[in-house]
Amino acid sequence: MKLYETLAAEIEGLVAQGVLRPGEKLPSVRAQQERRGVSPSTVFQAYYQLEAKGVIQSRPRSGYFVAARRAPPEPEVSRPDAASTAVDVSSLVFQVLDASRAPGMVPFGSAFPSPLLFPLEKLARSVSNSMRLIDPWSTVADLPPGNAELRRQIALRYQLDGAPVAADDIIITNGALEALNLCLQAVARPGDTVLVESPSFYAALQSLERLELKAVEVATHPREGMDLGALAQALDQHKPKACWLMTSFQNPLGSLMPPEKKQALVTLLAQHGVPLIEDDVYGELYFGAHRPALAKRYDSEGIVMHCSSFSKCLAPGFRVGWAAPGRYARAVERLKLTTSLAAAMPSQLALADYLGQGGYERHLRQLRVVLERQRDRMLDAIATHFPAGTRVTRPQGGYFLWVELPAGSDALALHARALAEGISIAPGPMFSAKRDYAHCIRLNYGHLWDATHESALSTLGHLAHS
Amino acid sequence: MKLYETLAAEIEGLVAQGVLRPGEKLPSVRAQQERRGVSPSTVFQAYYQLEAKGVIQSRPRSGYFVAARRAPPEPEVSRPDAASTAVDVSSLVFQVLDASRAPGMVPFGSAFPSPLLFPLEKLARSVSNSMRLIDPWSTVADLPPGNAELRRQIALRYQLDGAPVAADDIIITNGALEALNLCLQAVARPGDTVLVESPSFYAALQSLERLELKAVEVATHPREGMDLGALAQALDQHKPKACWLMTSFQNPLGSLMPPEKKQALVTLLAQHGVPLIEDDVYGELYFGAHRPALAKRYDSEGIVMHCSSFSKCLAPGFRVGWAAPGRYARAVERLKLTTSLAAAMPSQLALADYLGQGGYERHLRQLRVVLERQRDRMLDAIATHFPAGTRVTRPQGGYFLWVELPAGSDALALHARALAEGISIAPGPMFSAKRDYAHCIRLNYGHLWDATHESALSTLGHLAHS
Repeated sequence: MKLYETLAAEIEGLVAQGVLRPGEKLPSVRAQQERRGVSPSTVFQAYYQLEAKGVIQSRPRSGYFVAARRAPPEPEVSRPDAASTAVDVSSLVFQVLDASRAPGMVPFGSAFPSPLLFPLEKLARSVSNSMRLIDPWSTVADLPPGNAELRRQIALRYQLDGAPVAADDIIITNGALEALNLCLQAVARPGDTVLVESPSFYAALQSLERLELKAVEVATHPREGMDLGALAQALDQHKPKACWLMTSFQNPLGSLMPPEKKQALVTLLAQHGVPLIEDDVYGELYFGAHRPALAKRYDSEGIVMHCSSFSKCLAPGFRVGWAAPGRYARAVERLKLTTSLAAAMPSQLALADYLGQGGYERHLRQLRVVLERQRDRMLDAIATHFPAGTRVTRPQGGYFLWVELPAGSDALALHARALAEGISIAPGPMFSAKRDYAHCIRLNYGHLWDATHESALSTLGHLAHS
Repeated sequence: MKLYETLAAEIEGLVAQGVLRPGEKLPSVRAQQERRGVSPSTVFQAYYQLEAKGVIQSRPRSGYFVAARRAPPEPEVSRPDAASTAVDVSSLVFQVLDASRAPGMVPFGSAFPSPLLFPLEKLARSVSNSMRLIDPWSTVADLPPGNAELRRQIALRYQLDGAPVAADDIIITNGALEALNLCLQAVARPGDTVLVESPSFYAALQSLERLELKAVEVATHPREGMDLGALAQALDQHKPKACWLMTSFQNPLGSLMPPEKKQALVTLLAQHGVPLIEDDVYGELYFGAHRPALAKRYDSEGIVMHCSSFSKCLAPGFRVGWAAPGRYARAVERLKLTTSLAAAMPSQLALADYLGQGGYERHLRQLRVVLERQRDRMLDAIATHFPAGTRVTRPQGGYFLWVELPAGSDALALHARALAEGISIAPGPMFSAKRDYAHCIRLNYGHLWDATHESALSTLGHLAHS
């Protein structure tokens, strides 16, 4: 047994005995190092292992704490089969989404956080302001690339994120989904292959399906994102036309690719001349101290097509997203013009006004705190109610947990039984071109946690046992 | 010489001699009939011929008048070659659109009417109203098919137009362009053939190009729309997957298919099992007594995919359009979901509010009167300034004139020279997959006519002479 394993086993014992109580702060790394005489990396390795097993939790800027309840361990890295496949997931996805939209349903299967978390009154004021002062000609002039002031505000944020983009190279779209679709069309044609994570976001799979593209699912680590070794192999084997990744807080895993890995990713893709479609819609919802780096930050060749939106963090119904497609900017702009002409002007003007007022950062800070708290409560509830053998992710941002139920579980059956109890969930096969992940589910913790949610999760755990 | 030709020649002579003065009312059909002893149909035929030559003009509910100035004759029916072609028009279209967007340009090449013709203040109030009363959940719940109240309002209008459509079968989109694109994707795949008018709207050609579809351009009458004989031949010869038509006030011809012809069109297409994508964005901008019939009105099989929007007649920048795709409604709804999820909620709510207030009809009535007056002023100016041998359409709605310059004219060269003078026009080759119509231009009369416009048209006529 290695030194860090011994240390980890000791601490796990103390937790099991109740010497260290749920929620209690662990001794600091420095204290372990000084009193035990071990190296900082030994302590970090031990704590990392304990965190992966759900014994302890890190809290940004505060240190490590005993998990409020002992959460199940994290899933392993995915091992999808390496063949390329035509995608056929849409009808399942539509079935699930339709079923989940019934009013009163507990929204664990939802794709959105609660709208109650958004500054709707301020947005309403921004909408009114901007319409009162409107220049009539802007109603016909804000064709692609979109409203100039909004693009300026977005360009300012890219600069702060260390990935400067000219305002003219930002194309405003109807939400990130349209941006991603246009980027895909700019680089791939029917029959081409595109690399995606495994599991991967079902809307990405649906886009591939609609555009008659083939998907290759690449092994993905639940904490650190796509496996670059597996990616390198897939690049050689499949000669893909693009790679579509969520580099920060991937949906459904919540994985966050570390900065050096993002850099290596961009270098690898540049070597192969393969563009990266970087789907970054959850990037602002981080629980750590800093905004995660964008892969685009490491892009010297213009091959990263960065896409994001305000739909997940500010104004879902406004349908304002954008693409910063690097060297493909003009191609994407033209596709936008022939696909849907322009994004809605009231939404664009209102968001430009809102961003200009300066309250966005404050809103985001509050939102992140709420989401992190809800993540912990859902993790606790899973630890309490779900069967032994369950594994669950520890996302450091976003609002999804990925739950691996014990081997042999049937997520589609669970979905059907949960619906009958008024609970929506997103079953694993939605997240795979080949309908893998039959024993997995994605749960949304972006809704205000209350007794209904606690009891729904208990019901879900009960159903998962049987 | 037939009787009606004699009558027409007589009247033309009276106009030439100044006996009948510009703007003067002609004797009524009844008066001609009673005093000359000819049949009403003879009088109508004579008047129709004189109108086609631009000698007289009909005014709805008022009768026939001597043209204010004698307008050039109408163009003949188009005679496109019957082969199918891959479409390659986009780069020309983008060049022209980019060049025309420079500020201060006289907007004869514009695709939109003047934004000053729209009720922007009322719309701003509707935006504010609807945002104040917003249900937070609507920001995530108004997924396709779209806001329920807006769909209800649109369904009410279909009922008034004699083409009842269930609100659930209406899908709200980001403008009509997205609706048309989704309908096209629902019925055609790359390599398929689609029939269009000739000349045809360049955005339709761009959509075909982007989706890798082939176009067959079908002969089209400048007053009555697509030639059904030519259509029947093309259906047999090319086995198209769809037919994309503007049945009322076609862009660029302004042609209006008479109701019985629309009915025959739908019957013919139903026999061949070919869906009709009915692009009806100008249908509300009629100068006659009644809203022109929709082809959808004659659709008992659910093969007519009717598409329209508020962009041309109420709120251009709001980007709210819709499709009523008949039997393809669910397919289009799903495509919408995977293409751009949903239309912007502030725009949808504001238009639902505006329509609910009941001022839409009054706005439309005013708009129609203004557009008709501007049509006459532009026709007069063309008669005054353009070279002999010019032909021009007499649209009964919309805001475009289609001008055939004398044989040998070069519309692209004219476009370049006009731009240098600060005048945008839309050259004919934009409106053909094969870049035909080298001697034609489309002019927009949807902008408030003033001395600048008069002088720009005189400059244009001068350039056209040389």
